[in-house]
Amino acid sequence: MPVPSPNLYPDFNIVRLSHVEFVVTDLAASRTFYADLLGLQVTHEDEDEIFLRALEERGHHCMILRKGERAEANVLGFKVYSEEDLDRAQTWFARRELPTSWVERPFQGRTLRTRDVFGVPLEFYYKMDRLQPIHQQYRLYHGVKPLRIDHFNCFSPNVDASVAFYNEMGFRVTEYTEDEDSRMLWAAWMHRKGGVHDMAFTNGRGPRLHHTAFWVPTPLNVIDLLDLMSTTGYLANIERGPGRHGISNAFFLYIRDPDGHRIEIYCSDYQTVDPDHEPIRWDLKDPQRQTLWGAPAPRSWFEEGTAFAGAGAVESILKAQPIVAP
Amino acid sequence: MPVPSPNLYPDFNIVRLSHVEFVVTDLAASRTFYADLLGLQVTHEDEDEIFLRALEERGHHCMILRKGERAEANVLGFKVYSEEDLDRAQTWFARRELPTSWVERPFQGRTLRTRDVFGVPLEFYYKMDRLQPIHQQYRLYHGVKPLRIDHFNCFSPNVDASVAFYNEMGFRVTEYTEDEDSRMLWAAWMHRKGGVHDMAFTNGRGPRLHHTAFWVPTPLNVIDLLDLMSTTGYLANIERGPGRHGISNAFFLYIRDPDGHRIEIYCSDYQTVDPDHEPIRWDLKDPQRQTLWGAPAPRSWFEEGTAFAGAGAVESILKAQPIVAP
Amino acid sequence: MPVPSPNLYPDFNIVRLSHVEFVVTDLAASRTFYADLLGLQVTHEDEDEIFLRALEERGHHCMILRKGERAEANVLGFKVYSEEDLDRAQTWFARRELPTSWVERPFQGRTLRTRDVFGVPLEFYYKMDRLQPIHQQYRLYHGVKPLRIDHFNCFSPNVDASVAFYNEMGFRVTEYTEDEDSRMLWAAWMHRKGGVHDMAFTNGRGPRLHHTAFWVPTPLNVIDLLDLMSTTGYLANIERGPGRHGISNAFFLYIRDPDGHRIEIYCSDYQTVDPDHEPIRWDLKDPQRQTLWGAPAPRSWFEEGTAFAGAGAVESILKAQPIVAP
Amino acid sequence: MPVPSPNLYPDFNIVRLSHVEFVVTDLAASRTFYADLLGLQVTHEDEDEIFLRALEERGHHCMILRKGERAEANVLGFKVYSEEDLDRAQTWFARRELPTSWVERPFQGRTLRTRDVFGVPLEFYYKMDRLQPIHQQYRLYHGVKPLRIDHFNCFSPNVDASVAFYNEMGFRVTEYTEDEDSRMLWAAWMHRKGGVHDMAFTNGRGPRLHHTAFWVPTPLNVIDLLDLMSTTGYLANIERGPGRHGISNAFFLYIRDPDGHRIEIYCSDYQTVDPDHEPIRWDLKDPQRQTLWGAPAPRSWFEEGTAFAGAGAVESILKAQPIVAP
Repeated sequence: MPVPSPNLYPDFNIVRLSHVEFVVTDLAASRTFYADLLGLQVTHEDEDEIFLRALEERGHHCMILRKGERAEANVLGFKVYSEEDLDRAQTWFARRELPTSWVERPFQGRTLRTRDVFGVPLEFYYKMDRLQPIHQQYRLYHGVKPLRIDHFNCFSPNVDASVAFYNEMGFRVTEYTEDEDSRMLWAAWMHRKGGVHDMAFTNGRGPRLHHTAFWVPTPLNVIDLLDLMSTTGYLANIERGPGRHGISNAFFLYIRDPDGHRIEIYCSDYQTVDPDHEPIRWDLKDPQRQTLWGAPAPRSWFEEGTAFAGAGAVESILKAQPIVAP
Repeated sequence: MPVPSPNLYPDFNIVRLSHVEFVVTDLAASRTFYADLLGLQVTHEDEDEIFLRALEERGHHCMILRKGERAEANVLGFKVYSEEDLDRAQTWFARRELPTSWVERPFQGRTLRTRDVFGVPLEFYYKMDRLQPIHQQYRLYHGVKPLRIDHFNCFSPNVDASVAFYNEMGFRVTEYTEDEDSRMLWAAWMHRKGGVHDMAFTNGRGPRLHHTAFWVPTPLNVIDLLDLMSTTGYLANIERGPGRHGISNAFFLYIRDPDGHRIEIYCSDYQTVDPDHEPIRWDLKDPQRQTLWGAPAPRSWFEEGTAFAGAGAVESILKAQPIVAP
Repeated sequence: MPVPSPNLYPDFNIVRLSHVEFVVTDLAASRTFYADLLGLQVTHEDEDEIFLRALEERGHHCMILRKGERAEANVLGFKVYSEEDLDRAQTWFARRELPTSWVERPFQGRTLRTRDVFGVPLEFYYKMDRLQPIHQQYRLYHGVKPLRIDHFNCFSPNVDASVAFYNEMGFRVTEYTEDEDSRMLWAAWMHRKGGVHDMAFTNGRGPRLHHTAFWVPTPLNVIDLLDLMSTTGYLANIERGPGRHGISNAFFLYIRDPDGHRIEIYCSDYQTVDPDHEPIRWDLKDPQRQTLWGAPAPRSWFEEGTAFAGAGAVESILKAQPIVAP
Repeated sequence: MPVPSPNLYPDFNIVRLSHVEFVVTDLAASRTFYADLLGLQVTHEDEDEIFLRALEERGHHCMILRKGERAEANVLGFKVYSEEDLDRAQTWFARRELPTSWVERPFQGRTLRTRDVFGVPLEFYYKMDRLQPIHQQYRLYHGVKPLRIDHFNCFSPNVDASVAFYNEMGFRVTEYTEDEDSRMLWAAWMHRKGGVHDMAFTNGRGPRLHHTAFWVPTPLNVIDLLDLMSTTGYLANIERGPGRHGISNAFFLYIRDPDGHRIEIYCSDYQTVDPDHEPIRWDLKDPQRQTLWGAPAPRSWFEEGTAFAGAGAVESILKAQPIVAP
């Protein structure tokens, strides 16, 4: 089953991934982690929720932390190109008999809430409160100096099906892993905004959120964060890295927040705006696709993820999961 | 005269800037400069011309060096989204009574040659030969490790008119400099591909090409190039920098090739894909817009540029050009 | 007059430069500059004085800020190898009919106060309070992340005489600038601790302190400081750089504190511990010795300096001071 | 058994570590590894041997590769302060009934060959051919841009005995690992040249050479090398890292040459010239001393090393070697 041809004229125009809402069990601990340690900027907070943005973002929030009993991801948010795209999106999801509703969301305009084919909770909006630029207020930079939210990565029980669904929405595959007979996709990276990905899927029990990534300027920012975390009580929150992925060529670090939500710190990326940009194929047996430099990932990285609110996860359709090289 | 509202639904879809063709007087000297010193990769060469690409590019060329008597810029190239966009572009330019023709170009498909409102020679294509990825062949990286062509910057005798013209084509303003009464634009940065710019205009005798920029990973690559140039006979080719622009927040270095064509080495950029991304206004009197850190630019940087083939440059409509802070 | 042969068995053993005491006119403003902006750590403060150390230092202070009416440098401090070296130093200076006295200094043991041949106030000690290491307390790192004091640079009215004097004390020349006939030294860099310099001399009205340097890990720390200073009200305090010196190969930035005391931020250095390490000669006419990359220094950098307490400065014996390339 | 007090007035003056001689089984393969891949400079070569230096070194060689049947380390070389120190060294070793002889060595003056208390082959010299500086010939920089040899690390069957021996020679301990009762040293880092170490000892079957380290400017050079090695056929030669040691605070990478000789690429270091510089104690049970960021080292790193020519290795006197945290 080959990678589908890109849908260059989708029914509605998604600009980019926008934000994630996490349920966290200790709001204060999460605030310390994201604002004080990582360096995200708080744009609004009250007793129950905290909104954050990264340093070059003008939109009001790229992350919402909401106090709750059970750690999970409430929704993945995406920005569309116009109000009309919202209506077209509603039609598109409804036609696929997926649940759609218009919800009130603070700091956002009209918002469409829906789910993807496996139940991942999604929301789309066109308007979000715009804030003054702060990317040249260098006194605000600290921690890992996060510049922007970069992408989501989800476990999918059927990557071929997930890719087909998002491909129809206009997401284009940039890199992918197949088994050697090119029968099934093991993983795929898909973009809207012109980089390696806005959304990626990895084979596994799902749907679950594998990680949310933030883009930083250079590998030295990642090293600074490692030094900081390892000497301020966050050693156990370092899960994997630093290293370079073969796939995407990213210099990466994976960390876990106080509830276990996984965050990737990411730098290096490449431009993929050409409509005829050819996806790169990786063989499932090539260990360098995971880690160009050869160091193995811990088992937790392959197995653990964040549940999505209201979505029960099911086992992957792919039986034998080779832990050594997924 | 304010910045025009962005044209979010242009008549034809330009994906990004693509390439420049320079006339150079000593092909061997230019090859040494761009391939050996800067680190661009030669993809084709014969006695009269050399084609080069940067390290993450898949298209066949981002620069063509053509042997000739007089150093000038033959054309600025742009990639469109589809073959149909080429035809729509032809209609659009013809309607404005600008010259259009279909030209044969090696390694490119059907190519539309035209000129902008001030005579800047432009070409548009959809198809270019695609090459294998080399961004993970790290043995090829040397010099400044150029990853991709990033933008053009042109002198315009009337920046308001240039901006209005490119705005109609769908280029969106990200930052601009106005005089204090907001009557006239002094300079503007406009993008298609989601970064700060594909094309910028600066007030001055024009049209002339001010510079062509290449994107590199970190400021350390710029420092490496400075060390290399200053100890291998290229000291006089260093014109300005390193420094950080207020506008665009770029960490920059300006160098001159053996014929004086100006190249910017550029890192740091920010994402501008949101359709409601607000342009940043800079006052003409704010010296930090040019250099955030305060060091002045040399006079040559304000005055010198590359002539465009077949386009006579005229003086700016703005009389008093304050060299100290243009 | 050639560079003198190194005195490999000096009468007393100086380990390294140690600290400087500045008189500052606004203690709060200076605290903000050195502690909040640059990132030095306050180790003691009261109404009249502040003691600071850099991040990898174990000694109690590398800088003392003392409130006073007139900005000047009270003393340059050096650490010797043993208590006995203090007595030998006293003998050495007394024999040269230079003033010596034993002074009480907080946080230091027995301290010898004296002056060099041109009146530069010096102090020598063996014991200073030792503090716990903090170089792995990464939460303390901010600003430019200064790791240690690196060197002093002084204007001397007669560099040959200064070099001869410090050479007798065991300082060894690593690099120097001569006029073309090798008759006179224009500048010289001298070390005790095994790097390019603990002490340097530049021709000019003197004695005056040209600058005090701090060592930082990478050029990116310098860039971070430039971004920070230029957006927090310290733009006018940036005097020169970033750049690379030909001499010493240092990546440098020169800034001025609120009283005009000049600080160099310095990275890159090389090891000079070999007793037969050959000094590098630079010709006065070689412009790259000042700035490898070719950008000129501002006039203030050549002319301005900090007066030493109790030492009147006299004009240089070298008449024609070529501002363009000293 | 505590760390011995430093011997501040040793019988002879060792300046620094200087060079290592490796027996390699395939001279061409080793040349490719050290010169082409790592970036050391060849200063002499013939059919049987290759001499190399790093980029800021003036001495003729820091490494000698000698063709032979069996990979081993022939000798560790040290530079002394004067010819007289050589004679004093001969007396010192002879008094301890260790073998001494004067040997002819190319490019070196009079050379004393001897062995340490466990049979590690050592040589001392004062004079070595001095070469022109190349640290500002930036066209020569490639690979990992090695600036200088930094230190040796040896397995010792009795670290307390090794430390006592080198302490008498004037090496000073900067950091060390003890068991929790402070009865025995597990490892120790000792310097002469004013950094964290010229020589280190780790508990294990010995004497064997654990690694030879080279100093590079920034962590980005290490990342560049990882990218290069992993895409040019040297993936299997990457053994451990990148990471930061708790001990020494080094940012490190360990690689193996074609014969298995281990090389550390090392950056970050701190100044230790103060005679009263206090050593830092690490507890054997603290896992962060090995890796500040928590990633484990592979078993090979704990177990494998290079045999010394003519020195049979014996088991450590410490029985239970906790592989998880040595």
